[in-house]
Amino acid sequence: MDSSQFRDAAHTAIEDIVKYYDTIQDRPVLPSVSPGYLKPLLPSSPPQEGESWPAIQADLEKHIMPGLTHWQSPKYMAFFPCNSSFPGMLGEMYSSAFNAAAFNWICSPAVTELETIVMDWVAKLLGLPDVYLSDGEGGGIIQGTASEVIVTAVVAARERILRRRLKDMEEGEEKWDKMAEMRGKLVAMGSEHAHSSTHKAAIIAGTRFRNVPAPRDTGFRVTGQALRTAIKECRDKGLEPFFFTATIGSTATCAVDDLEAIAEVAKENPDVWIHVDAAYAGSALICPEYQHLCSSLASFDSFNFNLHKWLLVNFDCSAFFIKKRRDLIDTFSITPSYLRNEFSDRGLVTDYRDWQIPLGRRFRSLKVWFVLRTYGVEGLRRFIRNHITLGEYFHGLLLTRKDLFTVITGPAFALTTFTINPARPRRISSSAANRPDPMHEAYTNDFTTDAEAQYQVEVNRVTKEVYEKVNSQGEFWITATMVGGVYLIRVVSATERAEERWLKRLFEVLVGVSEEVLGLGKEGEK
Amino acid sequence: MDSSQFRDAAHTAIEDIVKYYDTIQDRPVLPSVSPGYLKPLLPSSPPQEGESWPAIQADLEKHIMPGLTHWQSPKYMAFFPCNSSFPGMLGEMYSSAFNAAAFNWICSPAVTELETIVMDWVAKLLGLPDVYLSDGEGGGIIQGTASEVIVTAVVAARERILRRRLKDMEEGEEKWDKMAEMRGKLVAMGSEHAHSSTHKAAIIAGTRFRNVPAPRDTGFRVTGQALRTAIKECRDKGLEPFFFTATIGSTATCAVDDLEAIAEVAKENPDVWIHVDAAYAGSALICPEYQHLCSSLASFDSFNFNLHKWLLVNFDCSAFFIKKRRDLIDTFSITPSYLRNEFSDRGLVTDYRDWQIPLGRRFRSLKVWFVLRTYGVEGLRRFIRNHITLGEYFHGLLLTRKDLFTVITGPAFALTTFTINPARPRRISSSAANRPDPMHEAYTNDFTTDAEAQYQVEVNRVTKEVYEKVNSQGEFWITATMVGGVYLIRVVSATERAEERWLKRLFEVLVGVSEEVLGLGKEGEK
Repeated sequence: MDSSQFRDAAHTAIEDIVKYYDTIQDRPVLPSVSPGYLKPLLPSSPPQEGESWPAIQADLEKHIMPGLTHWQSPKYMAFFPCNSSFPGMLGEMYSSAFNAAAFNWICSPAVTELETIVMDWVAKLLGLPDVYLSDGEGGGIIQGTASEVIVTAVVAARERILRRRLKDMEEGEEKWDKMAEMRGKLVAMGSEHAHSSTHKAAIIAGTRFRNVPAPRDTGFRVTGQALRTAIKECRDKGLEPFFFTATIGSTATCAVDDLEAIAEVAKENPDVWIHVDAAYAGSALICPEYQHLCSSLASFDSFNFNLHKWLLVNFDCSAFFIKKRRDLIDTFSITPSYLRNEFSDRGLVTDYRDWQIPLGRRFRSLKVWFVLRTYGVEGLRRFIRNHITLGEYFHGLLLTRKDLFTVITGPAFALTTFTINPARPRRISSSAANRPDPMHEAYTNDFTTDAEAQYQVEVNRVTKEVYEKVNSQGEFWITATMVGGVYLIRVVSATERAEERWLKRLFEVLVGVSEEVLGLGKEGEK
Repeated sequence: MDSSQFRDAAHTAIEDIVKYYDTIQDRPVLPSVSPGYLKPLLPSSPPQEGESWPAIQADLEKHIMPGLTHWQSPKYMAFFPCNSSFPGMLGEMYSSAFNAAAFNWICSPAVTELETIVMDWVAKLLGLPDVYLSDGEGGGIIQGTASEVIVTAVVAARERILRRRLKDMEEGEEKWDKMAEMRGKLVAMGSEHAHSSTHKAAIIAGTRFRNVPAPRDTGFRVTGQALRTAIKECRDKGLEPFFFTATIGSTATCAVDDLEAIAEVAKENPDVWIHVDAAYAGSALICPEYQHLCSSLASFDSFNFNLHKWLLVNFDCSAFFIKKRRDLIDTFSITPSYLRNEFSDRGLVTDYRDWQIPLGRRFRSLKVWFVLRTYGVEGLRRFIRNHITLGEYFHGLLLTRKDLFTVITGPAFALTTFTINPARPRRISSSAANRPDPMHEAYTNDFTTDAEAQYQVEVNRVTKEVYEKVNSQGEFWITATMVGGVYLIRVVSATERAEERWLKRLFEVLVGVSEEVLGLGKEGEK
């Protein structure tokens, strides 16, 4: 394919992409293919001779499109969003053209330098404390995903506590044995509602993991006291807590841990690395009305959010901010220390490879630069606030049918969670039959324990049934999860094309399906 | 930016890219910017209001282009190539449009299924043993980089040996303590010329690392005996070797470890995970004349090469083939085991997130599909063989000036390494003055040890000086490295636009600079 053929092919690709985005709302968000659909449609080996672009493009339309899930559709309201944008795509285009394995400065100086600059832009945009800016001892780096970031942080934290505790020991067998023994006692911690990536990171780092309770009566938030207790319980068993993931916007309900209280715990436990996972909700910090959440961040060691979730930068783009970059370099650099110090003392170049697991790096800062400049600060704030308003709108709709829906959490960062109210119970115990009217926004604890549990089983059953029926219709995609024994439906509408009308339509679908599942006619209970 | 503005912007971007590739040979391969060049050129915060595409595009040309290193230039002959291609770029375009965090099958079935299919295509293209195909117990996955792959393999190997050794112990504190103790004894191994990523992976996994010697008299290859000895020495110290990276095409010289003999060692040591790193040279296996290297691979646990190096797929795209996918899933899956077995038993879907460190995944198989179909098997073979021929051509040029150059290794996979011959020595010892004529292709060992060492110091000095002068001229970019006490220059011309004329020109530059450094006139020694 020469450059003239490329020009033609690229123009047809652009048309495909424009058409895809202009009509995305008309497609069912979930594909209807079955597992293994693609294998029979494609040859079992690559072609012997090259094929023309039109043949390839035709197969893309014919075989790949039917197997895509449309995350950019306004009818996508599952998990969290993974927003693309046109300037983000332009960034990827140039990045793939300027192709390089930019593992150090000289490998492509612009790749390193633009990354430092735009990460400083992002830190300022979010109102992060100055300690996370590159002109001090910290800075930001773009990694692929929040889960990759957490592995990086856990491994750095593991080695930091060993370095601190064993700094007076001479290098050698005895020290290594001691390090191995200590590693075996280390415990990484995260909220019971933290993303599973902290647990996975502990597996990769070879350390223990324990949950910190965040029950419903604290709003699914980890409190300072809960963390303090968890730390104490570890120590009482002779174990060494060394890492905690605090969450801004938990996966299930967008709960925010009690950061101010956790900052106090951090001060009491300077060897426990506190990482803040704000993968989705972190983008909201660009709005001043959310920046009060940043006040405690200077007390922590690292902060992460995904621009590829809610800030319009195409996947992948996870921003990892570190208070002391030396905490990463001391672990991940395999350059002899005298060289490292020379670089560091001269302060001339950043070797991001020493801040991360992989060696090579893509030119990801381009798309960030394009997105921030195309939207501008105010444009991005309008984008976020629109979703916040939509979340409130949907929450309001749920409240109009308290007979059917019970809101469990939210709207928080555009996410509302709720359950379906069972039809007036017939088969459960008499005390449960006396339960308060379901027109309460949240459960009260008036039931006897048994009756409550029995009622919850019924709530979970109907909620799951409604959830599955809505998704099986294929028009919308929502997700459900189990939190503290409650099976709840999550709705978050935060794609670029999100609009009130799609939430209204989803609400109608939810009402219709719920009435069907509960055996209610349009006129009320049968 | 609406879709019509995107269409216009994308067309201008395509023109930029076409122009960039059509004129890339006219640019100096290395930029002339100094560290920190970009910061004064850009604002210190993002703009408050959005900007237009022409403004952004103008800054790209003005501020970013001068800071790029041009890895696609035919004058780039450093490290290893990192080749892009037009079909690869088209793949990235669609991938960024179909943007999704495709962490499991339902998140976008085509993303998972196309990856399985094209990884099978790639395995067949390389002539890998059938154990690496997806229809048995193995399969391929696309990860970002070879270094990420090695961390994945090391962690899986670490947990596999623990599972095997402690399978009869009950879960609990005692088992965990035993696991911690064992982890502290584990040793990952790699050739002294293996890529540093194995060492880094051991740091991340919290295990020990040791080099296996691969001296010059074995051609810088690890022999079976060397590995056997290393394993024995570890065990004699009470340590437990659990991982070895065998290399096809070492970074410095493209040496290939003695795979057949290592396969024997693998059989004797079934708990040592053998990973084959063929990051660069693996692409040559698409040519039948190299596929004899594949015969031993069935004896190993995993195999990896980067399609983003020498197979025209834009960075990043590292193909990781695993003989028993369960070895990955048993470590990286955090889904409860009963769920895992159900999926696995039904054999319906692949959850690649359980084969890797991150959760989310890009749609990278698209670009592989586009490249394999656009070039076809024969087109790709022509591409590789062209570079092999160019390597032989350059090697032949060096041989025409044995007075100036001594070939150390190669041409191997298009890479030749060589040193500069010092001017007839005046200041070194009399025995060294009697050294054989430098018109030998490789050093002989005729010198007394002292004189040899003294001579080598002089070789290293002039080679380094020539190397630095060539790069400082900016026309070409080559790399140098130190191997077994020898400072050598590496030349590998394997970009898409590589041609004989650039190698001829580089050779002329090398001759000129060498004569200048050695103080030789055009007529011979001064």
